[in-house]
Amino acid sequence: MMILRVNENRLHQRMKEMSKIGAVDGGGVHRLALSEEDKTARDLLRTWMKEAGLDVKVDKIGNMYGYRSGKTDNAPIAFGSHLDSVGYGGRFDGALGVMAALEAMESLNDKGIETEIPLCLVNFTNEEGARFAPDMMGSIIVKGTSPVETAWEAKDLKDPEVKLKDELEKIGYLGDLDPTSFRPSTFVELHIEQGPVLEKEGLQIGVVENVQGINWIEFNIKGQSNHAGTTPMDLRQDAGQVASRIATYCRDLVNEYSSLRATAGLIEYHPNLINVVAGRSRITADLRSPDKHVIMGAENALIHFAQEAAMLEECTLETNNLTLVDPVHFDFKVVGAIEESANALDYTNKRMMSGAGHDAQLMAGVCPAAMIFIPSKNGISHSVEEYSSDEDVVAGANVLLNTVLKLARK
Amino acid sequence: MMILRVNENRLHQRMKEMSKIGAVDGGGVHRLALSEEDKTARDLLRTWMKEAGLDVKVDKIGNMYGYRSGKTDNAPIAFGSHLDSVGYGGRFDGALGVMAALEAMESLNDKGIETEIPLCLVNFTNEEGARFAPDMMGSIIVKGTSPVETAWEAKDLKDPEVKLKDELEKIGYLGDLDPTSFRPSTFVELHIEQGPVLEKEGLQIGVVENVQGINWIEFNIKGQSNHAGTTPMDLRQDAGQVASRIATYCRDLVNEYSSLRATAGLIEYHPNLINVVAGRSRITADLRSPDKHVIMGAENALIHFAQEAAMLEECTLETNNLTLVDPVHFDFKVVGAIEESANALDYTNKRMMSGAGHDAQLMAGVCPAAMIFIPSKNGISHSVEEYSSDEDVVAGANVLLNTVLKLARK
Repeated sequence: MMILRVNENRLHQRMKEMSKIGAVDGGGVHRLALSEEDKTARDLLRTWMKEAGLDVKVDKIGNMYGYRSGKTDNAPIAFGSHLDSVGYGGRFDGALGVMAALEAMESLNDKGIETEIPLCLVNFTNEEGARFAPDMMGSIIVKGTSPVETAWEAKDLKDPEVKLKDELEKIGYLGDLDPTSFRPSTFVELHIEQGPVLEKEGLQIGVVENVQGINWIEFNIKGQSNHAGTTPMDLRQDAGQVASRIATYCRDLVNEYSSLRATAGLIEYHPNLINVVAGRSRITADLRSPDKHVIMGAENALIHFAQEAAMLEECTLETNNLTLVDPVHFDFKVVGAIEESANALDYTNKRMMSGAGHDAQLMAGVCPAAMIFIPSKNGISHSVEEYSSDEDVVAGANVLLNTVLKLARK
Repeated sequence: MMILRVNENRLHQRMKEMSKIGAVDGGGVHRLALSEEDKTARDLLRTWMKEAGLDVKVDKIGNMYGYRSGKTDNAPIAFGSHLDSVGYGGRFDGALGVMAALEAMESLNDKGIETEIPLCLVNFTNEEGARFAPDMMGSIIVKGTSPVETAWEAKDLKDPEVKLKDELEKIGYLGDLDPTSFRPSTFVELHIEQGPVLEKEGLQIGVVENVQGINWIEFNIKGQSNHAGTTPMDLRQDAGQVASRIATYCRDLVNEYSSLRATAGLIEYHPNLINVVAGRSRITADLRSPDKHVIMGAENALIHFAQEAAMLEECTLETNNLTLVDPVHFDFKVVGAIEESANALDYTNKRMMSGAGHDAQLMAGVCPAAMIFIPSKNGISHSVEEYSSDEDVVAGANVLLNTVLKLARK
């Protein structure tokens, strides 16, 4: 098996240049989707893609494609990620996958390799959803779940006067291509883990075989606000207690479901005063698992518990399902190609799950897909503290290059 | 036994006039301590006291006294309450006790009764603590727990430029009397219950024999903020979970201590987002009981639990004791006089505890003291919805008048 390696210096140099666009104190970037910074980053990518001989195209949602022809005109092997960031986020989240994809193209050029199957670099629009909802917008539109016209109407979350289509036009990335015409034969995405698992286990590469499903539930509880001193315990309708009981039960669910991740991250009491029984409260649950039945089971148990807790406290309960995303299982052949590449390169690795959402999970509904992870220091992302070492960045790019080569040669 | 009754019309009329000062929509009043509204209310009281022939005096903390001489020059039987309110509070809390005291004086005048022991109406300064801390300030200074000079330095909670002494001077109620020279032989306070017990049990009069002690504890928890999707459960330090566990344990303590009232009314998670493990949190406990040992026992159990919960979650815990007020047991003779008066007037009544704090509990450290309660509709106070019926107002005033008469005759 032929093993290629990327040009480390060029990769680091370009990561560095890209990180300057929207750079903020602490080493992070502030590069919201379709902002001036996003435009500058896109322009730089376009320049580099053209220099690398790629045929650059843009679709109606602003997704950027850089095609490299092959010996056949098969549907391409696509790979990439996104250049947009959250507000004051890190410089690796997304950008790594795009820069490593570009470097893979350059490395193939350096070696004069023409693949059997054409290749395609992708930069998806608005993966983060930090400025326009929903997140993973570019890949959602490619998958065809929702029409591009709906996405065009999305409003800037901080300025409802500003519509997404106008911003696409303004920065020059409202393309002509129909996003749903993008039907590659395979999709591969390199990304930072955004979690602590690889670092904790001292591994270099994560071979991502699935993505957790997500279920967000919001509970609004109404009781009776009362004086903490004068109200006997048996005459209380303490909405705060109900919320806290739901929070602790939510967490304890992981003892019953081993693959479950359960978080109660948001709580509100009203009036939220030391000496007043809370008359209203709100609590949210974030339930995740790679197993849909686990998510459903946990949701049922939690809602049942919440109803009982509210009833015992003579409170009323309103339950809202905010988000429900099914788990995704990546293609075993693509996963296998990634694992073989990592092994061939002698990188320590393990098969793992993605805890966060990515464009690749939407692309898995379009074609065989999978992901490559590299470690995130302390598991931190969406923060200027986000960091992955130069060695890990190179390792990830090498695995991507060899995976693509393996898939595109046959 | 001679039974007197107050002049109902005059009492209602004066309550009505007093309620106009600082009146707000919904029937409440906004009459913060030492505000222009408080000045107007004090001026009106002074006028009425003078018209009733009382000798009006003001001490260095602004407490107002209206003396009525007796056959002897014994230390007076004192009774009253406060005219200040919380922001947008009710018209009965405090004002009832002052207006009923004035009416008692007037009724004795009407009947031409000269008591053996002199009488003294009191309007305490800043009982509510809504503008200047601490609450029950006037009676604290009378008791001598803290010097008047310290209270003078108290700052307006919303405008630290404004000091209490300047406000006393500005409204003309910085008197010459030493507050600690006020040493009556007995103190009686009529007040609304501010809780639901009397209404719930269909009783007219509460014979208050004790006041709960209060213990306020604040817990600050520090863990690690993390991504809800990517952070495995065993690598979490969820400060939010610790706070919610403390909240539910706090409430459950009442199952172990029957006289305990336990409230976790304030909770805060940071960053308080649906998909982020809380890195910091705060929770407060309000523990009350008429039994000091119950408060101490509950506090110990709660702190022990909080330490264990923080340890299990690998969080750090900081515990702050914010307030500790011992329970107060009122004088059995004064309590007995109130009970006899209520019975003589044929008012249904029961001995009970005060859930909230009152000037009378400070005065109990100065002289024999006790309180009279009348029902609060739905237990509501500190709200414009606060309400007590005309009949209950008269009943309370009648019990106060006859109790004072009984105590002052001997």
